[in-house]
Amino acid sequence: MKRPKDTIIALLHGPDKRGLVARVSGWIFERGGKIIDADQHYDRVEEIFFQRIEWAPSDEVSDCREETEEFIKFAGELNMQVVCRISSAKQRVAIFVSRYDHCFHELFLGQNSGELPCEIACVISNHPDLMEATEGHGVAFYHIPVTPETRRKAEQRQLEILWEYGVELVVMARYMQILSETFLKEFGSPVINIHHSFLPAFAGGNPYRKAYQRGVKLIGATAHYATAILDDGPIIQQDVHRVSHRRTVKDLIVLGRMLERRVLLQAVRWHLEHRILVYGRKTVVFD
Amino acid sequence: MKRPKDTIIALLHGPDKRGLVARVSGWIFERGGKIIDADQHYDRVEEIFFQRIEWAPSDEVSDCREETEEFIKFAGELNMQVVCRISSAKQRVAIFVSRYDHCFHELFLGQNSGELPCEIACVISNHPDLMEATEGHGVAFYHIPVTPETRRKAEQRQLEILWEYGVELVVMARYMQILSETFLKEFGSPVINIHHSFLPAFAGGNPYRKAYQRGVKLIGATAHYATAILDDGPIIQQDVHRVSHRRTVKDLIVLGRMLERRVLLQAVRWHLEHRILVYGRKTVVFD
Amino acid sequence: MKRPKDTIIALLHGPDKRGLVARVSGWIFERGGKIIDADQHYDRVEEIFFQRIEWAPSDEVSDCREETEEFIKFAGELNMQVVCRISSAKQRVAIFVSRYDHCFHELFLGQNSGELPCEIACVISNHPDLMEATEGHGVAFYHIPVTPETRRKAEQRQLEILWEYGVELVVMARYMQILSETFLKEFGSPVINIHHSFLPAFAGGNPYRKAYQRGVKLIGATAHYATAILDDGPIIQQDVHRVSHRRTVKDLIVLGRMLERRVLLQAVRWHLEHRILVYGRKTVVFD
Amino acid sequence: MKRPKDTIIALLHGPDKRGLVARVSGWIFERGGKIIDADQHYDRVEEIFFQRIEWAPSDEVSDCREETEEFIKFAGELNMQVVCRISSAKQRVAIFVSRYDHCFHELFLGQNSGELPCEIACVISNHPDLMEATEGHGVAFYHIPVTPETRRKAEQRQLEILWEYGVELVVMARYMQILSETFLKEFGSPVINIHHSFLPAFAGGNPYRKAYQRGVKLIGATAHYATAILDDGPIIQQDVHRVSHRRTVKDLIVLGRMLERRVLLQAVRWHLEHRILVYGRKTVVFD
Repeated sequence: MKRPKDTIIALLHGPDKRGLVARVSGWIFERGGKIIDADQHYDRVEEIFFQRIEWAPSDEVSDCREETEEFIKFAGELNMQVVCRISSAKQRVAIFVSRYDHCFHELFLGQNSGELPCEIACVISNHPDLMEATEGHGVAFYHIPVTPETRRKAEQRQLEILWEYGVELVVMARYMQILSETFLKEFGSPVINIHHSFLPAFAGGNPYRKAYQRGVKLIGATAHYATAILDDGPIIQQDVHRVSHRRTVKDLIVLGRMLERRVLLQAVRWHLEHRILVYGRKTVVFD
Repeated sequence: MKRPKDTIIALLHGPDKRGLVARVSGWIFERGGKIIDADQHYDRVEEIFFQRIEWAPSDEVSDCREETEEFIKFAGELNMQVVCRISSAKQRVAIFVSRYDHCFHELFLGQNSGELPCEIACVISNHPDLMEATEGHGVAFYHIPVTPETRRKAEQRQLEILWEYGVELVVMARYMQILSETFLKEFGSPVINIHHSFLPAFAGGNPYRKAYQRGVKLIGATAHYATAILDDGPIIQQDVHRVSHRRTVKDLIVLGRMLERRVLLQAVRWHLEHRILVYGRKTVVFD
Repeated sequence: MKRPKDTIIALLHGPDKRGLVARVSGWIFERGGKIIDADQHYDRVEEIFFQRIEWAPSDEVSDCREETEEFIKFAGELNMQVVCRISSAKQRVAIFVSRYDHCFHELFLGQNSGELPCEIACVISNHPDLMEATEGHGVAFYHIPVTPETRRKAEQRQLEILWEYGVELVVMARYMQILSETFLKEFGSPVINIHHSFLPAFAGGNPYRKAYQRGVKLIGATAHYATAILDDGPIIQQDVHRVSHRRTVKDLIVLGRMLERRVLLQAVRWHLEHRILVYGRKTVVFD
Repeated sequence: MKRPKDTIIALLHGPDKRGLVARVSGWIFERGGKIIDADQHYDRVEEIFFQRIEWAPSDEVSDCREETEEFIKFAGELNMQVVCRISSAKQRVAIFVSRYDHCFHELFLGQNSGELPCEIACVISNHPDLMEATEGHGVAFYHIPVTPETRRKAEQRQLEILWEYGVELVVMARYMQILSETFLKEFGSPVINIHHSFLPAFAGGNPYRKAYQRGVKLIGATAHYATAILDDGPIIQQDVHRVSHRRTVKDLIVLGRMLERRVLLQAVRWHLEHRILVYGRKTVVFD
């Protein structure tokens, strides 16, 4: 059954073809739909066409899922790759966290205020510290310690939990462990990470210390999709904060918290609103 | 004759109608055109639809002007208001300036570097100071002093010059006189002004002094279209710069220069690239 | 008894006198103290000298309070006004809040993480909504409804609570009521407010709606000390966020939340670290 | 002879010693001087104390140079390294430039407007393109082509010119050649370079292309002192500009121009106002 005000959001990409905008908008028009928002981008170097289109189906459409399936078929005929979502469907998100809790709290605040249209399905941590805070939100907490020896087994346990909850997105909220290539492959869905530097500067550990030692005048934070190579995945959002010579490493850590929270929240929101298309090492963000 | 690589840019707006995107893109598609860029916006409060669409006409189109005229007719049938431009056509711009020369130099630098796709047709000033600098660029300079008594006559002289040069845009580059409602009406084309504050804060004279006295922590600059009401026209671009209690009024003036230059340059560039649609007191900027 | 690592922070201001820096630093030096940080500012227009100086007293000083009292006497001899604090002494803060909870949560997060060196003594609200959240932090919550008829009585009740808890700072965390001049006078200690606009633009109610209607390209937030005149007190911190024509009033409200939280947190932190000196309508912030 | 309103600026650094602030300010006080501005910083990791102090000598001081020499002697007694300048003394600057002219013009505009308190002594370029523009400012232009074979000889010629003009600062305004370690040593005075990335990201050639390929969401510019290692010297100033997936490499180059100009201008201004102290790979900027 179609709920009131449901819209459909499609993210398309593929080789550029003349008339694509006309054909997609024509398809919606002919079925009595109303385009709410449409944004497109053509990468002239890679010769790829990207489109995000959101429409309200005709009042006669009783089931958005059916309309969605029809559109996916149509996109296939156009030789376009497509992801299609009904606006009211909330994604199930898992938070991976260690001890730093600022990003963890930010995500819960964002979810509670409605800024993040998702359901936080569970929290997984290699430390027990945030158990009480998680359960206070009525969310299941899993303490899975990780050592070099137990990593494989720990990741297997994590995957079982993600599958059990039907998790569609993992957010690494300052989770201080690296997820293996195997894990990422088996999970198969996106993982967003927040790195506390302006990538590609200061990838890896202790970025604030490195920033301090290099004497940079701005510190940064980067939200990106996790890939098998550490801190190398497609960048979603970045921001910076001005610092002076007066700031110690400890100051940078404190100032960076606000930056990390802001950048991560925005990246997760864009993802949940289906505004991001990944290709190669880059993202298109239809904001 | 169509020059190589010429594209057509159309700015449309009007009451929202279902199928508008489909019909516009369909029109281009059917004539063998290729959409380079398309951006649209629907203002749900005012119920107005806006679109900027840029396309390369079919190779068989020998004259872009003809295609342009056809499109204007078509837009009329859709009940949409439209402005249509051929990409290679450079607009003729006049600079109004007084004594502060930083915005004046910025515009010439921008024009020389190709960042501003325009021709600077002439410079009009109420002071003779920038005559030599203007003529050094091979551009005509008109010194037209303005006093309360001579304003009317001075504006008449200004209008004659603008008409003589076929000026399509006036840029007030810190021109320290107010252009009357009569002038604006008779000129009939857009006038962009740079105001040295974050409007609507500190409209009118001496904004840096007012900012200093109020103790603000950020100073600003605003580029807007001039209207009959001072510093009240549709805002195109704004930016700010952080200041501390250490800054004197004189410091703010110096720091503000860079801000004013940057904001004005960007606003004029957007205008020349046909990225701005004005409605009521607001602008849509398709960046 | 002196606790380890205690330092003393003095905020001085008064008419400029030659040799002031030399005399203050000399006083500390002679008593065996070590200057940790010193910052000064001279307002050439108002002819006022400001200084923030932080020092570690000699190891022989067994009681920082005594050293503090000696310094206050000394400052009096110099004809300077002075506020003196021992670094480890945590101020008692009361939060005033209505229904919007983002600033409320931000303050608790900041206090928990140590970023805000204070004790949250109590929360006072004209709505019961945040009672549970407050008590979850182990903090007393007072629900004091306010109507035009009961304002006077309500404020009297608020004052009694503030006195009872020995509150030294009130933070209005989007408290949607105006505190009367009488209240501010009787309380006698500072009150910090967050206003959701770039003051002096859009003072008063509904600033995001006003910003939307004016078509500004940046929205702002301002933290300031509350005075008897609404949104007119000395500005502590301001920041802005870029917005486009695509943003609705509702979007501005959501985007503004992060801005308000950030600006308020920073202002409260500076206040608690004794970095702010107020004079007239302005602040000196020794960051 | 002391000119009216001359002040003396001293930049000191050395091992921290108790009483340093007291002794320096005491020295000035005793000689009847008036401290205009004083800023200090203590690096707790490196245990180095930094101070910038500006004072107006007593009216009885007829020659600032003498006062300056006395102060240098006094600083030596304190075991502090010191650089001392009379405020009205303008430094002689040489601009090194290739073909990109935006930074070149920025420096001349800054010098003309008084923002850069210096004299532009000469311009040296490996291309003849900017000869006319330079000579139009009444400044000598030297065209010194550089090839891998002639580099040594070219640098020798450059040094002779710098010595001839008594140049105290070289500004590399997008000079597309690397200055050798030998050159830097023999010149002996500071060289400021502008690099068109947010260092340490994208050091070396083609940073905008690299930024585009990595898909960063902010581009940057960095002004730093040149050292023997490319793009590795102490950072003076950095800034960033937001970019979207729509921007091509060419767009980044255009957008970056404004960024480079702004960052370079600010760095050169701070240097000329004696606000920068270099230690190791870092700078202290007393802004």
